[in-house]
Amino acid sequence: MQKIILKPIGRVHSPIRKKKWGGREPVVSEIGLSPGYEEALEGIEEYSHLLVLYWLSRTPPRSRGRRLKIHPKSRPDLPLVGIFATRTQYRPNPIGLTQVQLLRRRRNVLRVKDLDALNGTPVLDIKPISPRTEMPAKTRVPEWYHRLWKKPLR
Amino acid sequence: MQKIILKPIGRVHSPIRKKKWGGREPVVSEIGLSPGYEEALEGIEEYSHLLVLYWLSRTPPRSRGRRLKIHPKSRPDLPLVGIFATRTQYRPNPIGLTQVQLLRRRRNVLRVKDLDALNGTPVLDIKPISPRTEMPAKTRVPEWYHRLWKKPLR
Repeated sequence: MQKIILKPIGRVHSPIRKKKWGGREPVVSEIGLSPGYEEALEGIEEYSHLLVLYWLSRTPPRSRGRRLKIHPKSRPDLPLVGIFATRTQYRPNPIGLTQVQLLRRRRNVLRVKDLDALNGTPVLDIKPISPRTEMPAKTRVPEWYHRLWKKPLR
Repeated sequence: MQKIILKPIGRVHSPIRKKKWGGREPVVSEIGLSPGYEEALEGIEEYSHLLVLYWLSRTPPRSRGRRLKIHPKSRPDLPLVGIFATRTQYRPNPIGLTQVQLLRRRRNVLRVKDLDALNGTPVLDIKPISPRTEMPAKTRVPEWYHRLWKKPLR
């Protein structure tokens, strides 16, 4: 299949310098878009939440799509499952996706809460949340998923 | 900034051959991954919903990021807003993102409901929905957003 070429639209400025084991940080960070995109952000401040797509740039290219199964968060007590059944960074196309709360916009800079991307991460796209399409009333998840979040992480 | 190269992991097989004006189709389609990724899907059937990332391959490259503002769904009665405040395909990196209901998996093929991608669309990634992170209790959206979906579309 053909190759697809993307170009980052900006970068994450975050206090997160190193990925901690165990997931999500309650953190405030900023997304600085290239100044030429300031106009393209107009009206975004009317949303409370956004989806941020970014490039997991620290995933070594050689590891992309090599591992087909993993233990979620490397926990051997959880089952070995396919990478597409998890949110691991070891994906064929390591695109990260996080829902964030938008705190404010100033010109080409968005201040957001709950973005778990590392400082310097290239940003690919920003999409508003569409409540009409993006919130199933009820979801079913694997049994291990509940265990993943219930057990206190070290 | 650096260029990023992606490679599709599979394709959408859908009855949708032409994008209709006005949005979402209640449609059942299939995502056929490259056979090498069958193992990477193991366990995905335990989720009810997935996020599908795909390449909006019919967006002309020259239009990428050129338009900075649009009227949502080309409706002049709705305000002119920045492209990042909408889900338009005319984005610098035209990555589509749709939440689908997973109906079944057979080997490397997922049958899904509500995928609004055209037949033949290259698929970039498949992620499970994480209820822990992906469902804000309450979202705020622009006033025009309510009008967009309230008014019956032609």
